Amino acid sequence: MIKGSKERSDVLNDLRRSKAKDISFNSGRIFGSMCTAPHPIALEAHTLFHESNLGNPGLCPGTVDLERDVISMLGGMLCLEPPYGRVLSGGTEANITAMYMAKKSTGRRKVVFSKNAHFSVLKAIKLLDLEPVEIALDDRYRMDTVQLREVIDDDVMLVHAVAGSTELGTVDDIETVSRTAHGTRLHVDAAFGGFVLPFLDPEHLRTHDVGAWDFRVGGLGTMTVDPHKMGLSTIPSGCIMYRNRDALDALKVESHYLTSPMSFTLAGTRGSGAVAATWAVMRHLGSQGYRRIVKECMDNTRYLGIRLKESGLERVVDPVMNVVAFHHSKPIMVDSMMRKQGYFISTVKDPPALRFVVMPHVTKEAIDRLVPVLNRVLERI
Amino acid sequence: MIKGSKERSDVLNDLRRSKAKDISFNSGRIFGSMCTAPHPIALEAHTLFHESNLGNPGLCPGTVDLERDVISMLGGMLCLEPPYGRVLSGGTEANITAMYMAKKSTGRRKVVFSKNAHFSVLKAIKLLDLEPVEIALDDRYRMDTVQLREVIDDDVMLVHAVAGSTELGTVDDIETVSRTAHGTRLHVDAAFGGFVLPFLDPEHLRTHDVGAWDFRVGGLGTMTVDPHKMGLSTIPSGCIMYRNRDALDALKVESHYLTSPMSFTLAGTRGSGAVAATWAVMRHLGSQGYRRIVKECMDNTRYLGIRLKESGLERVVDPVMNVVAFHHSKPIMVDSMMRKQGYFISTVKDPPALRFVVMPHVTKEAIDRLVPVLNRVLERI
Repeated sequence: MIKGSKERSDVLNDLRRSKAKDISFNSGRIFGSMCTAPHPIALEAHTLFHESNLGNPGLCPGTVDLERDVISMLGGMLCLEPPYGRVLSGGTEANITAMYMAKKSTGRRKVVFSKNAHFSVLKAIKLLDLEPVEIALDDRYRMDTVQLREVIDDDVMLVHAVAGSTELGTVDDIETVSRTAHGTRLHVDAAFGGFVLPFLDPEHLRTHDVGAWDFRVGGLGTMTVDPHKMGLSTIPSGCIMYRNRDALDALKVESHYLTSPMSFTLAGTRGSGAVAATWAVMRHLGSQGYRRIVKECMDNTRYLGIRLKESGLERVVDPVMNVVAFHHSKPIMVDSMMRKQGYFISTVKDPPALRFVVMPHVTKEAIDRLVPVLNRVLERI
Repeated sequence: MIKGSKERSDVLNDLRRSKAKDISFNSGRIFGSMCTAPHPIALEAHTLFHESNLGNPGLCPGTVDLERDVISMLGGMLCLEPPYGRVLSGGTEANITAMYMAKKSTGRRKVVFSKNAHFSVLKAIKLLDLEPVEIALDDRYRMDTVQLREVIDDDVMLVHAVAGSTELGTVDDIETVSRTAHGTRLHVDAAFGGFVLPFLDPEHLRTHDVGAWDFRVGGLGTMTVDPHKMGLSTIPSGCIMYRNRDALDALKVESHYLTSPMSFTLAGTRGSGAVAATWAVMRHLGSQGYRRIVKECMDNTRYLGIRLKESGLERVVDPVMNVVAFHHSKPIMVDSMMRKQGYFISTVKDPPALRFVVMPHVTKEAIDRLVPVLNRVLERI
């Protein structure tokens, strides 16, 4: 049984104490997270739609419209016309769903991915009992398409590529991947990159050899994109986008006691809050607003690069996106010493490196406060 | 690209219009949903913790404490000591997780469940490639333990039983199920019942033959319980509870670039909002508060039974919980005609019946408004 019952004011005081223990993004001390503070309008929208549940769509036709509109806006961003998709709980659910679709429609179990794939791929492999074929990266930390050619055969159900890798922010050469996969289904995990790449300066993309990475690539069947990362929406909002209208039928089961006779998504209950939040922030910012935010993040990424070059650190790659890593032989030790100073950076395993995600909360001022602390830590190692 | 960008006030006006299309719980017109309006304190708590992410626990030690505390309170409610568990996105994720644990630790694929299982079981079977063994219900719509005895063999990885079925609110005879399963792993889906059964009058449980259904039953290994249903928390909060500390290791994958070296749950990102909301409402209501709410729901369930008996309808079973169904030969027609009148009831497929979930928003007044509308519809069929 639950002991006692507390007054509202006591509960809220306790919560504020717990909240104070969490590190807030606006403390300027989080440099290793792909999340950030949601946009204020996302918070307002989420709160307004707290009780609705897209898992029972007949009760919330308003939210159904919002989801359709979100998918339509995403279609515009990702060059998918007509746009099909769903708002799920996050990138992991979207990646698992895409793999399940591929397994179901091909009857195969072999999935090809490279070392830059997110760890959710390993979860999907476990859950769906898939046969993993992990291939190497090329010298620019993108999927090695030469090795891809060697492993592609009729047993492969899916090639899982990445547009904006978690560790280094690199973008696989999706056009070459698609050509090399010739006909094998292709999924692109753009959980992070989906809200960055469309808003980057085209000249920057050209100089970094980023060609078409989205549904302009004909072979691309499914894509993951997370509004709760660079989309500035609330958790949980991760989307799956797909080219074929009926793709989600793979997961369909009967749900006759709901207002919809079929349930199509992995989760049953799907809160409307994050859907409304995503709609609100996309409508409010528009491409223009996201372009401004992405530009600022890229400016700060370059600034961090310059400051840490002065500290004697060398970048692993010239960053395409607002993720940047620096070679270091003992990243875990640096990370842990920085934590003791109250700064949260993160690490790359291979090559050993210090990793920074320059989200909107990572301002020049925050970088200026970080650098001397990091320098002192680096000197002590 | 996303066309234009709208002013904050225009976005919020649009959202309010969409929100007005959704049917709100306090309209008193939703009689077929297992969700309800979250408790106000849950909303306040969720909003306070919107930006934190339990998927990266090193950044939110405050939320980690809250989750531990929620699991501890649930342990008290469900007689699990020491209490182990996690707050996930909902009952579906919890049920899938429990099945994956069973598959992984036994190496088997056969899962036994009966016709009262929630449709998420069918999703889990698809995803995890399991071998379903569906058994019948007894004459009280509970798992038929005679048939269970016949199908239990060394190939069964899990018996999936239900404490509070979605359609009729029935509670399987968990003690007999456990004895019959002798040693086979047992999961109880108490997504709905978990926040009802502990707060029901013991005398009511006795007269309805509900014995131990929780971790008092030695054979029970895992349980699903959803705070976002009768717990009055926000979406997404569905919990998995488990007896063995290391049970969740089944899903573990490396996540070195986060503040925790391993990720244990199906989803990666896990918002703190619903965790804080669950903590707040449980701490605020305590057992006493939930007892009061459950009593009111049960009173109204009985009241609905009396009113619809007057309408000539016969209950399928004497309800253990606040879910009640009435025999009818054309439930889908009634349901759809009621929807045209703006009332949302729901249906049972076998036996054909009209189904009502008497959540806290279903007041006597709401029932009094429903009954004449339903009577007119019934007369027209």
